[in-house]
Amino acid sequence: MEKRDVLEKIAKRLRIHSLRMTSKAGSGHPTTCLSIADIMACLFFEEMTYNIADPFDWANDELVLSKGHAAPILWAAYAEAGIIPIKSLMNLRKITSVLEGHPTPRMKWVKAATGSLGQGLSVGVGLAIAMKLGKSRRRVYVLMGDGECAEGAVWEASNLASHLGLDNLCAIVDINRLGQSEATMFGHDISAYEKRFQAFGWDVQKIDGHSIGEILRAFEWARQSKKPTAILAKTLKGKGVSFLEDKNGWHGKPLKDNDLMRALKEIGPMPEIDSKKFVKKPKKVKGPQLTKRSNFKRTHYEKSTATRRAYGNALLNLGKINNAVVCIDGDVQNSTYAEDFFKAFPKRSFQAYIAEQNMVGVGIGLSAKGYQPYLATFAAFLSRAHDQIRMAAYSFANIKVVGSHVGVSIGADGPSQMGLEDLAIFRPIPGCVVLYPSDAYSTEACMSEMSKHKGLSYLRTTRPGTPLIYDRDEKFPIGGSKVVKKSSTDKATVIGAGITLHEALKAYKALRGEGIAVRVIDAYSVSPIDGENIRRAVKKTGRKVVVVEDHFEQGGLGDAVASALGGCAEIVHLAIKDLPRSGQPDELLDKYGISAKHIQNAVKSLIKSRKR
Amino acid sequence: MEKRDVLEKIAKRLRIHSLRMTSKAGSGHPTTCLSIADIMACLFFEEMTYNIADPFDWANDELVLSKGHAAPILWAAYAEAGIIPIKSLMNLRKITSVLEGHPTPRMKWVKAATGSLGQGLSVGVGLAIAMKLGKSRRRVYVLMGDGECAEGAVWEASNLASHLGLDNLCAIVDINRLGQSEATMFGHDISAYEKRFQAFGWDVQKIDGHSIGEILRAFEWARQSKKPTAILAKTLKGKGVSFLEDKNGWHGKPLKDNDLMRALKEIGPMPEIDSKKFVKKPKKVKGPQLTKRSNFKRTHYEKSTATRRAYGNALLNLGKINNAVVCIDGDVQNSTYAEDFFKAFPKRSFQAYIAEQNMVGVGIGLSAKGYQPYLATFAAFLSRAHDQIRMAAYSFANIKVVGSHVGVSIGADGPSQMGLEDLAIFRPIPGCVVLYPSDAYSTEACMSEMSKHKGLSYLRTTRPGTPLIYDRDEKFPIGGSKVVKKSSTDKATVIGAGITLHEALKAYKALRGEGIAVRVIDAYSVSPIDGENIRRAVKKTGRKVVVVEDHFEQGGLGDAVASALGGCAEIVHLAIKDLPRSGQPDELLDKYGISAKHIQNAVKSLIKSRKR
Repeated sequence: MEKRDVLEKIAKRLRIHSLRMTSKAGSGHPTTCLSIADIMACLFFEEMTYNIADPFDWANDELVLSKGHAAPILWAAYAEAGIIPIKSLMNLRKITSVLEGHPTPRMKWVKAATGSLGQGLSVGVGLAIAMKLGKSRRRVYVLMGDGECAEGAVWEASNLASHLGLDNLCAIVDINRLGQSEATMFGHDISAYEKRFQAFGWDVQKIDGHSIGEILRAFEWARQSKKPTAILAKTLKGKGVSFLEDKNGWHGKPLKDNDLMRALKEIGPMPEIDSKKFVKKPKKVKGPQLTKRSNFKRTHYEKSTATRRAYGNALLNLGKINNAVVCIDGDVQNSTYAEDFFKAFPKRSFQAYIAEQNMVGVGIGLSAKGYQPYLATFAAFLSRAHDQIRMAAYSFANIKVVGSHVGVSIGADGPSQMGLEDLAIFRPIPGCVVLYPSDAYSTEACMSEMSKHKGLSYLRTTRPGTPLIYDRDEKFPIGGSKVVKKSSTDKATVIGAGITLHEALKAYKALRGEGIAVRVIDAYSVSPIDGENIRRAVKKTGRKVVVVEDHFEQGGLGDAVASALGGCAEIVHLAIKDLPRSGQPDELLDKYGISAKHIQNAVKSLIKSRKR
Repeated sequence: MEKRDVLEKIAKRLRIHSLRMTSKAGSGHPTTCLSIADIMACLFFEEMTYNIADPFDWANDELVLSKGHAAPILWAAYAEAGIIPIKSLMNLRKITSVLEGHPTPRMKWVKAATGSLGQGLSVGVGLAIAMKLGKSRRRVYVLMGDGECAEGAVWEASNLASHLGLDNLCAIVDINRLGQSEATMFGHDISAYEKRFQAFGWDVQKIDGHSIGEILRAFEWARQSKKPTAILAKTLKGKGVSFLEDKNGWHGKPLKDNDLMRALKEIGPMPEIDSKKFVKKPKKVKGPQLTKRSNFKRTHYEKSTATRRAYGNALLNLGKINNAVVCIDGDVQNSTYAEDFFKAFPKRSFQAYIAEQNMVGVGIGLSAKGYQPYLATFAAFLSRAHDQIRMAAYSFANIKVVGSHVGVSIGADGPSQMGLEDLAIFRPIPGCVVLYPSDAYSTEACMSEMSKHKGLSYLRTTRPGTPLIYDRDEKFPIGGSKVVKKSSTDKATVIGAGITLHEALKAYKALRGEGIAVRVIDAYSVSPIDGENIRRAVKKTGRKVVVVEDHFEQGGLGDAVASALGGCAEIVHLAIKDLPRSGQPDELLDKYGISAKHIQNAVKSLIKSRKR
């Protein structure tokens, strides 16, 4: 049998599976599967090589289905390849199945969750970088939709891919003309995409996405290119079924009984072919030897140091003992202090430029190949990548995000540069660790903990220098807290973290001068919060608490503490309650009510109150 | 005096002001001001026309300084134009001055806060659309940096601008080669930008950004174009001061005393010229007559209806009585139900395609010209525009954001499509109103309230249909709540909103069957939360509360209620505590612990507990 016949038969099988699965599930996107059936057949049964026994084999080519709503045909392809049973396809979207509505790595072959459009290319860039780092000669394929090319993240990724010369990266754009609600901006004007990818430094080829011959020749061509390649495939949404083909109004609609019968009849009987036989097995290769140690040598500090500076020191020393550590920075490495790592390990350092979305997506890709990416920018600008961070969680990615320049304490640069919502981004993500150290030593300790932790985590660092509070060997386990000041006569507990811990310590001193003893807690582990230790302290201090943080009132440390206390204490919450403005750090801490003076007053009012 | 001489003199004055201001402030970005001094002189004193007495005059040309860190020279230009006193420049970045570190509309001439890079072009697109809508023949200028062109949002905006044929939009890119930490991706390769903007459908001209003649000719050329125009200005960072010019390492560094002296000496004495005389006054024009009414005709409902469907109905009827209402949708208007408005008011409807960042930026621009934009997409994808939403708040923009398809109740599409962090995005923003209605009538009432409210607000809508609870005329004021079930023997209060209110009502019924009376509260106003009413109810029900929400545990309704109760009650919080997955809506509500059954059990455990 000729190669073309084989692949046409397999494509037909994929089409039939996709229609049946979505009809059975009662929801899903069959027409968007049909437009890529021929491309998927070529990818899985001719172009890509992979070891069906091991999704993590370094000998595998990698595929990211960026147009995640085409998940059914992805599952169908894995079934045809013999990776999952064909009968399991009928479990699509069931609560008991890993074959979810959009791909997630609950199905082990999926390297990144997709379904929020325009993110897959960044993940592909990350995978391609990882392969270069790991000296793999395998390739990365990203199958994208045309509609998602409206997302800016696609162009962030395109820029970086060509800048880094990622010739192992091949994007296939399924140009089926139709978005969800209407035609895309460019419809079937393939040249619109051609111009854009070319301008962004890619090699581009236009093909008929339903011609097996053209698809295979394009892959062959792509392998020869010295640049990242984009194959622009003109396709028809619903291809293969006359009443669906190229018709608007069928997005995300499975076929009902009669329509399904008609469609299947038109496609014809399931071709009898054992697709498994056509899977290309790879030659054995050795992946990179990654030593994932975390107990790096701590820096010695003698004076006030910014926690961002300590992050830079820790990252450098961690990098020396852990070659899985890679660093990506958004053109601020001289502010986040990633710059020392950049100098010491240029091959493991990636300038992401001012493109935070892509920075996170690249991190997801690197993590999927076993690397341990540290991504840093100003905390305020992490909001730019919130969707990618969200998807990193669903991707079970092991990425470490670092946000510097948090809160009004940055001062005169003004609100656009102040990270005041970063805790509210990371805290809600189930399983995400959020650490917020207050001095250089605790920062280094937190870095060590983050490195040990597998999964998404976030480190919050401060711009101004802060005095040393701890010893070099002090441990800061995830989920812990520190009682920094304590006596048997404490009348209230003051909880801070980062810069506000230092304000709390100033308030402690002033209150002591007035004969008022308070307990001071460093809640460096904002999530998980140390409920037990905090509850214990609070019970011993008259159930009166002041929480103070350099973050908006909602979504941060105050909420974490309130939720840990579950109604068992009287809480005064000092936080940023207005849209802030430019000024000097000290002025701003005071203006927005989180300075030592405000803590002092809050404690005094609180211990006078008789609410309880 | 020749025009060129005048502008060169003014440019010199702007340079001197920028250097002095930043040195006085002790922080800021003088070198990035110097690279655009000549462009700014041409813009403010030759190209743009504006009425210095009224920043909101429809006869004004509009400028967005997208590279917000060049704020000092923007303030200097306003001073030279006679809008603010020249001596006020020495208050740069002071806590008492509106001349902040990055521009905010605290200074009235600023139409959108900038400083998070790559956002200004979207705002410019919004302003340009507003001018077309308002039949203005004035123009919009967006002054961008080269580094920020790495942001995908720039390309989202570029696509839409050319798609809409915005010939009144002119971007000037200040290509000074240097980013913050090192050279940009393309350095002085101007053709890299040329290719990209051309591919995205713009007319492009390359110029020497320090030649007054070339700058003026480019503006002249741009006015003739039928497309949006990009003027690519090759410049030198630090231009005019030899030891700063084109040198890396000077980003964001003001000059210290000696350096300032040297620099000013090199530039020479302050040219004596009265710049004010060269401001071009516009001819009087009439702006659009916007009728901003909010009491639209309510739809009559007879059966279960999705709140997203009611949003669509309300938007249509609001649009009929309020011609300031414009609608922007991210290719999901058939899911958010913005589609009826799109059909009825095509000129006031904008397909933003799958580009949420740009959608919000465009909204900021439209709002700045007095329109009332409604922006809708799936709530999950609002995370994509979190940074723009943040900046909308600092822009004091009057935009109404609508997120549909929230929570696990969307069902089988899976986690990538579930809005589970949207409340945690909007709640922290000071002043932002967050409404979350549970039935069709309350949705329409909330829409009316949102329309009356001036400022950022968010409406959370649900995918599945929900039964009618209220009457058509019921009022839902911002900051309110509804006691939906109540008796004198209530043993606990159950607080829900949206879909979980219906689960709470099912639990109420089941509990009543067991002889247990509970109070049920609809907390439709999530922010501001109705603390008073909630505290009152809770006190009367044994201080026992169950809060239930289809949102991640942190940052949503539970945190809002806990903070309102301030420790005066025992709270059980039912929310999504794991990363969810695909399944049927009812299965998922149950699996993640927010179904009626879980509420029922929570109430029973709670009233048995003797904690208090």
